[in-house]
Amino acid sequence: MIKAAIIGATGYTGLELLRLVEKHPGLQIEVITSRENQGRSLEEVCRWSGKYKDLVFEAPVVENIAPKVDVAFLCVPAGKAQELAYQFLTHKVKVIDFSADFRFKSISVFEETYQLPYVYPELNDKAVYGLCEVFTEEIKKADLVANPGCYPTSILLPLIPLVKEDLVETDFIIADSKSGTSGAGRKADLYYSFCEVNEDFKAYKIASHRHNPEIEEKLSLFARKEVKVVFTPHLLPINRGIFSTIYVRAKYPVKVLRDCLQTFYQNRPFVRLAPEGTVPTIKEVKGTNLCKIGLFEDKKRGFVVITSVIDNLIKGASGQALQNFNLMFGFPEETGLPFSPVFV
Amino acid sequence: MIKAAIIGATGYTGLELLRLVEKHPGLQIEVITSRENQGRSLEEVCRWSGKYKDLVFEAPVVENIAPKVDVAFLCVPAGKAQELAYQFLTHKVKVIDFSADFRFKSISVFEETYQLPYVYPELNDKAVYGLCEVFTEEIKKADLVANPGCYPTSILLPLIPLVKEDLVETDFIIADSKSGTSGAGRKADLYYSFCEVNEDFKAYKIASHRHNPEIEEKLSLFARKEVKVVFTPHLLPINRGIFSTIYVRAKYPVKVLRDCLQTFYQNRPFVRLAPEGTVPTIKEVKGTNLCKIGLFEDKKRGFVVITSVIDNLIKGASGQALQNFNLMFGFPEETGLPFSPVFV
Amino acid sequence: MIKAAIIGATGYTGLELLRLVEKHPGLQIEVITSRENQGRSLEEVCRWSGKYKDLVFEAPVVENIAPKVDVAFLCVPAGKAQELAYQFLTHKVKVIDFSADFRFKSISVFEETYQLPYVYPELNDKAVYGLCEVFTEEIKKADLVANPGCYPTSILLPLIPLVKEDLVETDFIIADSKSGTSGAGRKADLYYSFCEVNEDFKAYKIASHRHNPEIEEKLSLFARKEVKVVFTPHLLPINRGIFSTIYVRAKYPVKVLRDCLQTFYQNRPFVRLAPEGTVPTIKEVKGTNLCKIGLFEDKKRGFVVITSVIDNLIKGASGQALQNFNLMFGFPEETGLPFSPVFV
Amino acid sequence: MIKAAIIGATGYTGLELLRLVEKHPGLQIEVITSRENQGRSLEEVCRWSGKYKDLVFEAPVVENIAPKVDVAFLCVPAGKAQELAYQFLTHKVKVIDFSADFRFKSISVFEETYQLPYVYPELNDKAVYGLCEVFTEEIKKADLVANPGCYPTSILLPLIPLVKEDLVETDFIIADSKSGTSGAGRKADLYYSFCEVNEDFKAYKIASHRHNPEIEEKLSLFARKEVKVVFTPHLLPINRGIFSTIYVRAKYPVKVLRDCLQTFYQNRPFVRLAPEGTVPTIKEVKGTNLCKIGLFEDKKRGFVVITSVIDNLIKGASGQALQNFNLMFGFPEETGLPFSPVFV
Repeated sequence: MIKAAIIGATGYTGLELLRLVEKHPGLQIEVITSRENQGRSLEEVCRWSGKYKDLVFEAPVVENIAPKVDVAFLCVPAGKAQELAYQFLTHKVKVIDFSADFRFKSISVFEETYQLPYVYPELNDKAVYGLCEVFTEEIKKADLVANPGCYPTSILLPLIPLVKEDLVETDFIIADSKSGTSGAGRKADLYYSFCEVNEDFKAYKIASHRHNPEIEEKLSLFARKEVKVVFTPHLLPINRGIFSTIYVRAKYPVKVLRDCLQTFYQNRPFVRLAPEGTVPTIKEVKGTNLCKIGLFEDKKRGFVVITSVIDNLIKGASGQALQNFNLMFGFPEETGLPFSPVFV
Repeated sequence: MIKAAIIGATGYTGLELLRLVEKHPGLQIEVITSRENQGRSLEEVCRWSGKYKDLVFEAPVVENIAPKVDVAFLCVPAGKAQELAYQFLTHKVKVIDFSADFRFKSISVFEETYQLPYVYPELNDKAVYGLCEVFTEEIKKADLVANPGCYPTSILLPLIPLVKEDLVETDFIIADSKSGTSGAGRKADLYYSFCEVNEDFKAYKIASHRHNPEIEEKLSLFARKEVKVVFTPHLLPINRGIFSTIYVRAKYPVKVLRDCLQTFYQNRPFVRLAPEGTVPTIKEVKGTNLCKIGLFEDKKRGFVVITSVIDNLIKGASGQALQNFNLMFGFPEETGLPFSPVFV
Repeated sequence: MIKAAIIGATGYTGLELLRLVEKHPGLQIEVITSRENQGRSLEEVCRWSGKYKDLVFEAPVVENIAPKVDVAFLCVPAGKAQELAYQFLTHKVKVIDFSADFRFKSISVFEETYQLPYVYPELNDKAVYGLCEVFTEEIKKADLVANPGCYPTSILLPLIPLVKEDLVETDFIIADSKSGTSGAGRKADLYYSFCEVNEDFKAYKIASHRHNPEIEEKLSLFARKEVKVVFTPHLLPINRGIFSTIYVRAKYPVKVLRDCLQTFYQNRPFVRLAPEGTVPTIKEVKGTNLCKIGLFEDKKRGFVVITSVIDNLIKGASGQALQNFNLMFGFPEETGLPFSPVFV
Repeated sequence: MIKAAIIGATGYTGLELLRLVEKHPGLQIEVITSRENQGRSLEEVCRWSGKYKDLVFEAPVVENIAPKVDVAFLCVPAGKAQELAYQFLTHKVKVIDFSADFRFKSISVFEETYQLPYVYPELNDKAVYGLCEVFTEEIKKADLVANPGCYPTSILLPLIPLVKEDLVETDFIIADSKSGTSGAGRKADLYYSFCEVNEDFKAYKIASHRHNPEIEEKLSLFARKEVKVVFTPHLLPINRGIFSTIYVRAKYPVKVLRDCLQTFYQNRPFVRLAPEGTVPTIKEVKGTNLCKIGLFEDKKRGFVVITSVIDNLIKGASGQALQNFNLMFGFPEETGLPFSPVFV
């Protein structure tokens, strides 16, 4: 039985991870931390009724936690993960980090994007980008995995195989993404209050979202040239789910793109092509670790429209983290992860 | 491995049952039926990605289905279950019925309430009311279980122990219940269309809802006298969950009522008292098979306010059906049933 | 043209008042105040496009504002209105106060309920409770009107005529109310964040809400004896609207109650009885200044169920304030107030 | 006082028109029709409380209606408007048609797009496309105005000036639009039922929506060459509002585009540019007849991102129809139309 700690367990991703881990036969949560709630139980703080309800929040002190666990899930903000990761790795505890601290190969791009200084560059060299279906082999050998951003996950999964095989023009890709509000995290903020979000819809951080460079770096890696993606995130008045509508100019008929994706993901349980002519919806993946992809050709206008859906809290966060755990510790990658959608 | 059929599997309760059963180690779905979708797979019809996605819908013909299964879950409307139950039982297949056909001891009350003639009265004598925590022993021996209504489940669980121990006045009990829209089932109806339900809230069937006699019959049974409950259902603009606010005049201090419930449910995993002074919310039970109960005393006005929450599709339908299955077939009652809430 | 100031204009009630006043031929907003936004325009701060978009927020300094206006609408929290009201009245400016500071005849009940000391008791004697259809004549002569609470408005309008005529038992009234989230005001608070409220429903402040004594004081006044109301507020995942389900024991057939309300409100445009057998819904009054009332008899159980709906931001706040203004300044009471619902 | 008829008044656009007209000093609704509800009043059928509540639904028989009115608003499906328009015009009654029947200059494109035969081609020559800010002068002289589609309104208002002045490349324009569910009309359809739409989000009719040719025909007219627009509509789980995110390649810096729009709409009250750097949101225009436009430059990637928001039931339907009425009958175009948003 592998033992784990969740650092920062009171947010939406931490709670979702606790919910998912319950179903995992080989993973046991030993430690949860929360600065504000030390000494109180999960039941007390979150009205939790699940398996781990009696677990008591500890302070995030690595030397106390490390001896008890084999792996640490870091659910902390960007900039806060580096020091924790360094300490856990020093104690031979593997790390799966939810933040952006280790997602970038280019430290300068990270520093510019997040306006944070980089403390452990050598650590970053060891880090593997945890997009499970793409960096599988590296993840299996990794001690430090950077769980990808939610938007990048929904956009990279359909695009990486296509740019790798040079099937689409790379100077012209548009990703129009819409995310449920849980993507913003759990916090008191008027902008995310019910009356402000409900019955509204808006774009934000146009041409300036921090996931944009993350998307471009990974695509450029596979295209072996610079790829530019015009990325616009939008806030959806729903709790969970991401829907990305991606516009590309294809160099071949849509069937070739479809076959490419089919081949790339053929033995992978969590990435699926929607039947021809059907649009995958958020409900089809809500509550699952799936990414579903639809392909449509607009012959008259010379474009292929790709739609991609994920549950931002599962495949976009805690589910993919658990999938990374499975790869790192030798479990079948679907272990403990849900396939059946929560339709209503 | 017990084998089962789901009769009428394309509705919300049927799909929810399929989702839950996946996690059950001892139950295998062999047959799903749908008049409209015969010959098509679950994946094709419902874009299903879970374990049973390749299962193909059959016609609801009992003689073909019975040889393949040990138990049948009937997810059909009131009036349609009797004939199916009769046939399955004749073939020695146990039945768990989601409809109201076998919920009433009094056939005349059923006929008056549902305006339907009763075909198999003798069958009704054999039926057990499947409120798991209350009729446990009878359910274990039953071949035919009537899964309770969603509203009654949320109201009877807190009230049965109290009327049984004669702790509250039985001549006026008020149950003001609010249900998510999935309680209305899956159908094309302007009344339940998005724009009509969203941003609205309304009471319906005031003093005339069909669950009212069901609630009163069961309470009267335990009170050993006639109990009257003023019951008002309301439609909530959410997908799932029931919140019942129940007003009673207590004959003893609230602590006595609390102890009574604590004792009655002490070894039962799915019924829990909220900590004193806290109100259980729908989110705390969403995605679980739990019923959470809160008790508040309004000393100044001489009332006790009881709040009770369930997930109408789980404890109010498919989850309780699975719990009944566990009791009927000798599994621990929590087998395959979720405890961790889906907070967002 | 009457000139007015809105003190605290950036909240939901302030903005709603600005929206409504646009349609009023005899009222002109001259001053809006906001501590945080002094010197900035309504368009700049709230992206406002309406008539008053170029109005610039001032500091809430009465001596500067008073000379410019005839009336002040105070949209400030309880405890903050007394001093402002005192100053405006000293400057011969009439006051319509949205807070609770002047709602209670009994200062001790106010102090106990709001845990605030009372500074200007003599001012309170002059204040009139602004429930327009009930205190009409007093309001016409008043210089200081206390705009009623949103919950009390929805509960008092149906009950006052009935207790006044002694048609219902007064030792036993239950009001189960559900309010849209805008009732909580505009603030950054995790409890009211989208993901916490959306898809949830909960009761709060059971037997301890501050509107409970307000309701009881007014009913007792008309019953000429102490009236007790068990009041439970609930939080609805919608933006606006209040639905109150009220349970009473009637001393006469429901027809008598219906006639009583019909007579009491016969010449009043904003209070209407729903056709017999129909339940008024929030959508029927959304966007209007109406209160709609439905009456149902549960003969078998000896109760009358009254349902009452209002738009909490209009009849429950800014609309009733404008109606009070009309009465105070001699306009027809419906001047500038909407009747047509916003169905979607 | 101009007198009008609304043909098909029980849908969302008909009711919204009735709500708006109330505020119009020069327009009186004389006739409303509904096949299903003849002889019943608006109050009876729609629980209406507004000015026209006592209006009784008639049969849509033109010879009976025409003598009573000066103008007819046709709220009927595509294909049904032609015959009605022909008859009303024969009776010298002006027509404002909400359907697509007269939106296309090219009859063959209409017939191909809507799969309907064209009955009155000569009528189509007389019809004017009612995009108020663009075809103003033609509308003033028109007897038959085709009210534009909701999606086209949100996309054409920002793009027409830009293609007219040749400021953007016309061989690839992408319009990613999201619409509230009321855009689908008022009907019983499982696809639009609450539980299916709520907490979901999806694209539909990708590369095949009927508004796509409408958008392209109008843009091509002003570009004086064929313009192609890749258009993807999405269904938002909100009641009203359209948000269009439009991607263009600009031939000049964004400032030039901004100035172009500023100039084009300078004296028009309902089209506004959002302040630089701000994204207009649906809430800013909800309940108003406004179209708000935001412009963002993605310098690094060589694109301009245009966001455009309208209330689909007002500027996208009934409000623009009323604005067309104002132009046709010589009223100031803003007469009776709202500017202040309904924020919550």
